[in-house]
Amino acid sequence: MSSSISHADILAQTNRPSLRSWVQSANVEGSDFPIQNLPFGVFSDSTASARVGVAIGDWILDLAALERARLITVPYSLVDEDGNPRSVFRQGRLNDFVSLGQSVWSSLRLQLSALLSSDNAQLRDDAQLRERALVRQSEATMHLPFDIPGYTDFYSSREHATNVGSMFRDPKNALMPNWLEIPIGYNGRASSVVVSGTPVRRPNGQRKTPESDRPTYGPSRRLDIELETGFFVGVGSKLGTPVAAAAGDSHIFGMVLLNDWSARDIQQWEYQPLGPFNSKGFATTISPWVVTMDALTPFRVEQPCQDPRPLAYLRGAQNGGVDLELEVELRPRFAPSGKTIARTNFKYMYWSMAQQLAHHTSSGCDVRVGDLMGSGTISGPTNSDGDGTGTFGSLLELTWNGQSPIKFANGEVRSFLEDGDEIVLRGWCQGDGYKVGFGPCAGVITPALELGSSEDDQ
Amino acid sequence: MSSSISHADILAQTNRPSLRSWVQSANVEGSDFPIQNLPFGVFSDSTASARVGVAIGDWILDLAALERARLITVPYSLVDEDGNPRSVFRQGRLNDFVSLGQSVWSSLRLQLSALLSSDNAQLRDDAQLRERALVRQSEATMHLPFDIPGYTDFYSSREHATNVGSMFRDPKNALMPNWLEIPIGYNGRASSVVVSGTPVRRPNGQRKTPESDRPTYGPSRRLDIELETGFFVGVGSKLGTPVAAAAGDSHIFGMVLLNDWSARDIQQWEYQPLGPFNSKGFATTISPWVVTMDALTPFRVEQPCQDPRPLAYLRGAQNGGVDLELEVELRPRFAPSGKTIARTNFKYMYWSMAQQLAHHTSSGCDVRVGDLMGSGTISGPTNSDGDGTGTFGSLLELTWNGQSPIKFANGEVRSFLEDGDEIVLRGWCQGDGYKVGFGPCAGVITPALELGSSEDDQ
Repeated sequence: MSSSISHADILAQTNRPSLRSWVQSANVEGSDFPIQNLPFGVFSDSTASARVGVAIGDWILDLAALERARLITVPYSLVDEDGNPRSVFRQGRLNDFVSLGQSVWSSLRLQLSALLSSDNAQLRDDAQLRERALVRQSEATMHLPFDIPGYTDFYSSREHATNVGSMFRDPKNALMPNWLEIPIGYNGRASSVVVSGTPVRRPNGQRKTPESDRPTYGPSRRLDIELETGFFVGVGSKLGTPVAAAAGDSHIFGMVLLNDWSARDIQQWEYQPLGPFNSKGFATTISPWVVTMDALTPFRVEQPCQDPRPLAYLRGAQNGGVDLELEVELRPRFAPSGKTIARTNFKYMYWSMAQQLAHHTSSGCDVRVGDLMGSGTISGPTNSDGDGTGTFGSLLELTWNGQSPIKFANGEVRSFLEDGDEIVLRGWCQGDGYKVGFGPCAGVITPALELGSSEDDQ
Repeated sequence: MSSSISHADILAQTNRPSLRSWVQSANVEGSDFPIQNLPFGVFSDSTASARVGVAIGDWILDLAALERARLITVPYSLVDEDGNPRSVFRQGRLNDFVSLGQSVWSSLRLQLSALLSSDNAQLRDDAQLRERALVRQSEATMHLPFDIPGYTDFYSSREHATNVGSMFRDPKNALMPNWLEIPIGYNGRASSVVVSGTPVRRPNGQRKTPESDRPTYGPSRRLDIELETGFFVGVGSKLGTPVAAAAGDSHIFGMVLLNDWSARDIQQWEYQPLGPFNSKGFATTISPWVVTMDALTPFRVEQPCQDPRPLAYLRGAQNGGVDLELEVELRPRFAPSGKTIARTNFKYMYWSMAQQLAHHTSSGCDVRVGDLMGSGTISGPTNSDGDGTGTFGSLLELTWNGQSPIKFANGEVRSFLEDGDEIVLRGWCQGDGYKVGFGPCAGVITPALELGSSEDDQ
């Protein structure tokens, strides 16, 4: 282990814009996965079951294979019942590796950066080992990166909260009184978090129109997306002991893209007084590659000015923002191609990840390795920029509650999602000659489960 | 395995009121744990780490020890990396055992009932084996019974929802319009579920009085309890596939008592629009013994009449109620003894557990083995019954938002909890000559974490 080198030195070494890899596809302009990125994920292929890998260009570096070949080492933390060490990479989840702690994540990333560098022959010139250790992404199946013990979703975009408040409450008092004081969040449903590519079944649920006396149960007619990012907790906290805002970032392993699918009609009827439940619990899609905070370090920026000044327990973090460009593509079922319906940036977020974590734990609530925290819908300051692409992160906002449907080249229009529509989120940080990308976060809507005859008499 | 005997026959055999055990303390009137109960839990003692046991009288039957002695058998489901079977009882959680399925739970309970019967000499007359297999409850430490992948809390008492609506909204329209249609629920925080006996630290959080311009961060001044039960999912469901209400009970392993500690001042300020978060996420206490649905079968009753008739997906379950008596004792820090402040019954609940599960999964959301579902605060129809004991399940209701504080014999009064106060929930089903009890669900309030000087300038 490279314990003699400081974290700052590791970052300086691994994030150098001039670094290039002998994996040629990693050097192609526009690749999400250059050698400066090295995001972690869990994959399987026809040769072996789920294990830990790192994306490089069009390939996956198999960490279990590298470990067997003794090209990388990490301290053992897992033992079986007989006391023998168990590999943290031969697991279908990152939890065991990430539990080893921040210095292990960083020093492993340094080892991988060195192994993949153009000038390092160790793996580059060993054809047999390359064959075992590199898997084409196109031939692999990605899995959820973590066993997710808890999923919390925040609501930290001021523009999004203002838009929703304007539509459903009072445009003059669109923000709730608590919004500028609290990084508002709620507990989401962890069981239904799925990895990019998993089809999303349109939910059935209770909807009630103002005209009808009673609700009916059936397919959501106002199925929406929410463009979000999520972060994974890499260092847990103890019950009863808050995480200080200034220490928040040190608890975060990395980030993903997150689509918080939302059934607006179900939400509207169910959400008082305890918040959204079935309207969001049917599926949440995340991108498979966890981009480490180490790789994102060069892109940290000041978050927007906070007025009023937050209470003391929410202060103390520096560079809470990330200059992370985001796009939403909608591919209607019958359209020959998709269309970018939103472009925005994570840097607009009012509350930072460190503040979210400080608030979450401020009551003494504990967090655990693998906990997923959603940012809340990320909306920028303006809607359509002229070519029909807005900066808002939901169809609800982009179509202003369906009043201004989105038009597609083949004549189709969308206020909300129809069966067969596909949504693809993309995100990247633009570096000097390279970008640190997230890969797609995609999902296709499949038709709602048909209701049996017993469910018709409503 | 006793696969040749039907579930109904097993229930008839194991729930006979006349059954007696050679464990004498199980036959004492008032014991929570007669041979008709046999609840499952996880315990440790000075001799070994956490493992699965069953409560009988004042003792715990160590199932790992029974299995080693080959007195009980279950099908193997766990294997280690070398393909060898791993005991589901030598685990610090019930998840692995419970994942074996309902027929295994029931047939094991039948084996245990037989082993513990007065007329069965196999364990009774084997002093060495008894020494290994029976552990005094007073010498054991109880642990959380399950690894809890998800915790959902419902809001299913009509009386409670009416009381809260009367206090904080409009007494004439106390119930929200959706309440009679939806078993309202929200996602709780699983990480902070703790087992009975764990001290509960008073949370710090944001509170705001109507008079002040801004909130402050500090100790909750309105710390409350919520008397609830919880059930554990024993058979999961697949994402996209709802559980029918008629099949709901077959997915439930058993029940516990649950105290949903609530900081009312934090809740009041934070809960709009996404529901309670920090006000409830700091701790939720459950009783350690999971009373099986098999043991509760003789006590199932019709739930209250539902008008309007629920939508079809919420219909079809029989005997949704449980005649389960409940008590709350408050022991003020300086009082020589506690006082029963509430007596009520689970049978008052408007929405049944099967309906909660049907609603939870009606969107396609999946549930997993070990998921915990809270009932919501259980309030009966009336407040004080003359001796100062009400049927309401929270201090908020019992003191009507602090307007009628509870008086104690030593002169102390309580509107909400003070540091050092202890709350003990108790619950039992009264059988003919025996009761199926839950054991206590207790927690003492400890002082809030002191804030550093940097947090004073608010």
